[in-house]
Amino acid sequence: MINQTMEQLGSSPSVIRELFAYGLTQAKIVGPENVFDYTLGNPSIPAPTKVNQAICDILTDTDSIAVHGYSMAGGFDTTRTAIADNLNRRFGTSVTAQNLFITCGAAPALISVIKALSAEPGQSEIMAVAPYFPEYRPFVENNGCKLVVIPADCQNFQIDLKEVEARLTIDTQAIIINSPNNPSGVVYTEETLKSLAEILTTKAQVYGHPIYIIADEPYRELTYGNVKAPFIPTIYDNTIVCYSWSKSLSLPGERIGYVLVPDSCENAKALYNGVAGAARAGGHVCAPTLLQKVIERCVDEMPDLQAYDENRILLYDSLTQMGYHCAKPDGAFYLFVKAPNGDGRAFSETAKMKYNLLVVPGEEFECPGYLRVSYCVSNDMIRRSLPAFQKLIDTLG
Amino acid sequence: MINQTMEQLGSSPSVIRELFAYGLTQAKIVGPENVFDYTLGNPSIPAPTKVNQAICDILTDTDSIAVHGYSMAGGFDTTRTAIADNLNRRFGTSVTAQNLFITCGAAPALISVIKALSAEPGQSEIMAVAPYFPEYRPFVENNGCKLVVIPADCQNFQIDLKEVEARLTIDTQAIIINSPNNPSGVVYTEETLKSLAEILTTKAQVYGHPIYIIADEPYRELTYGNVKAPFIPTIYDNTIVCYSWSKSLSLPGERIGYVLVPDSCENAKALYNGVAGAARAGGHVCAPTLLQKVIERCVDEMPDLQAYDENRILLYDSLTQMGYHCAKPDGAFYLFVKAPNGDGRAFSETAKMKYNLLVVPGEEFECPGYLRVSYCVSNDMIRRSLPAFQKLIDTLG
Repeated sequence: MINQTMEQLGSSPSVIRELFAYGLTQAKIVGPENVFDYTLGNPSIPAPTKVNQAICDILTDTDSIAVHGYSMAGGFDTTRTAIADNLNRRFGTSVTAQNLFITCGAAPALISVIKALSAEPGQSEIMAVAPYFPEYRPFVENNGCKLVVIPADCQNFQIDLKEVEARLTIDTQAIIINSPNNPSGVVYTEETLKSLAEILTTKAQVYGHPIYIIADEPYRELTYGNVKAPFIPTIYDNTIVCYSWSKSLSLPGERIGYVLVPDSCENAKALYNGVAGAARAGGHVCAPTLLQKVIERCVDEMPDLQAYDENRILLYDSLTQMGYHCAKPDGAFYLFVKAPNGDGRAFSETAKMKYNLLVVPGEEFECPGYLRVSYCVSNDMIRRSLPAFQKLIDTLG
Repeated sequence: MINQTMEQLGSSPSVIRELFAYGLTQAKIVGPENVFDYTLGNPSIPAPTKVNQAICDILTDTDSIAVHGYSMAGGFDTTRTAIADNLNRRFGTSVTAQNLFITCGAAPALISVIKALSAEPGQSEIMAVAPYFPEYRPFVENNGCKLVVIPADCQNFQIDLKEVEARLTIDTQAIIINSPNNPSGVVYTEETLKSLAEILTTKAQVYGHPIYIIADEPYRELTYGNVKAPFIPTIYDNTIVCYSWSKSLSLPGERIGYVLVPDSCENAKALYNGVAGAARAGGHVCAPTLLQKVIERCVDEMPDLQAYDENRILLYDSLTQMGYHCAKPDGAFYLFVKAPNGDGRAFSETAKMKYNLLVVPGEEFECPGYLRVSYCVSNDMIRRSLPAFQKLIDTLG
């Protein structure tokens, strides 16, 4: 009587959520200062003050019906123009308002693109590169496509391009590229992306249809040192961008993001209409309008990454000194650590039971033998957790 | 290369939107005071002042990360408890926070329920009663079910129960009940609902599975005179409620609503999990968190319906005096008018071209020969439009 797949999805425990819930329980028993919760990717820096100021300003200077009334499905023209202008200033592109469809966050953006590309439901393929955000699987499989996973490049956590080439088929519609990456914290280099672009271009000619890159980039602005995440539409014409301000403006709960279909995409118009139609079929009416107006005023705000950066350096340096091997953390707020015992699940379980140290096994991201450590936490918690990390590598390494 | 259904959905013009767009264009040519736009169901009264006040209070008294960070997928416990308490106070129910799943508006709520009930994709049936909200069709057909439409009861715009009984099959999972009704403005009586409940109960026994009522009730609080919309879970145990504050608090752009699965539903737990899983498969992460906190503080606010009521009375009395036949408008903000020439499309076209009077043909709601007139407009516009209505019935009636 109930769709079994939906029931399963709704009741299946997420390992990440279970770890987090365990942490909450333990905090009540042993005190929060004795729990080291590195599980969730929840921004730990507040939204820029300009955001809350913008909300107050809007409520004062804009008529209530204009603030809280419907926008067109794709979003206010003024908001889309502001977003386009910002991208063009930063990346030298020629984005216009008409290329943008504002969504309730990045997840619905991805789903609308996937649905639009499910040209042959059940047969169309979407690629993802391990380690990958686990929700890609239900997103793809429940929206008309098949997921093809490229095994992780455990040397550099770039992309195993030979595998990509080997696994491309005539049914491949797109490859999801998440850079800066969750869970690895790595940023794909321009070289990697150009090589990928070449492979896709060649195969597209062979198969007679475009193969899109779906650039899933909510961490775009979260890069450190001199590293910048290349804006992929400037490298490969057939790039669709999915974005949200969840991480860059610390607004994950507010559900505001977009799909960008640049004019350079083949079938751009059909694709945009497909995204709009998929959104409609999924119950999208418009993205939250107050937040659209906030974005219009705050689109040029960049996050203050100092707190994340200090955490990043502390964690990476400390763990490396102890003998842990870590992927080079140039972006997002994740450190991807090789489990010294080669078993992410076993390490995670031991860390949890012995030290209330909560880290997510790489198995959850289809990268066994690794651990995701989210450093969107307090710097103090990192310091206090280091002895536990030390003991673990002493005993398990 | 692009899913044809999605592309079609995204590019097919909505008659309502086209009329609205025509009105905007005409307003620039002849002046807005000479365009009588009755097309959209956009609330014309502002949100209660308490709403904007609550937003400011929350930004002041609550930490930014707590305001803008993720909530659990189903919503903050405190918000859900506030909603439950409010329903229990008003309707004598025993709703708890765990029965509620907060969504980004009513549309995603409906879609999650439909998906959850698509037990046999492509075969499971959902009923709707004409005249009905046109989006039900893409909602149902693109989420695993077939739509079965019960023809309109043009006498009273209640429900043709004989037809319901005749069209129920073993594949019928649910019937969508939208009361107060868009587009008819009618409220289903307790008698109608009880009779419906009996039919469904009997058939459920025959077929060996529950047949749910999906109560789609964003207009629940918009009733006039002594008329109240019965709370359907108190009449029929197997009722799932989909709600939003779009109309009651004039927050349509903010995307905040819920699914309620009462404990009295058969398979309540599986159903709730199915709704949660369907939401997840559709990219739901959580409903906008600032608005969740607003609802927590404002859930007891009732709309000030005076402006709508004055419009309702003026429009209904005036049109009836001219000889128009109208469904009795007890709820929402729509007047459903019989086209005097028996042809909704022709009347709408003539009204548009000759008088810039924009009304939606009943054909759009599968009720030919009628017109939907949305009176969420200024009272002054109604007055100024009356001569056009008069001329139309003189010439076309």
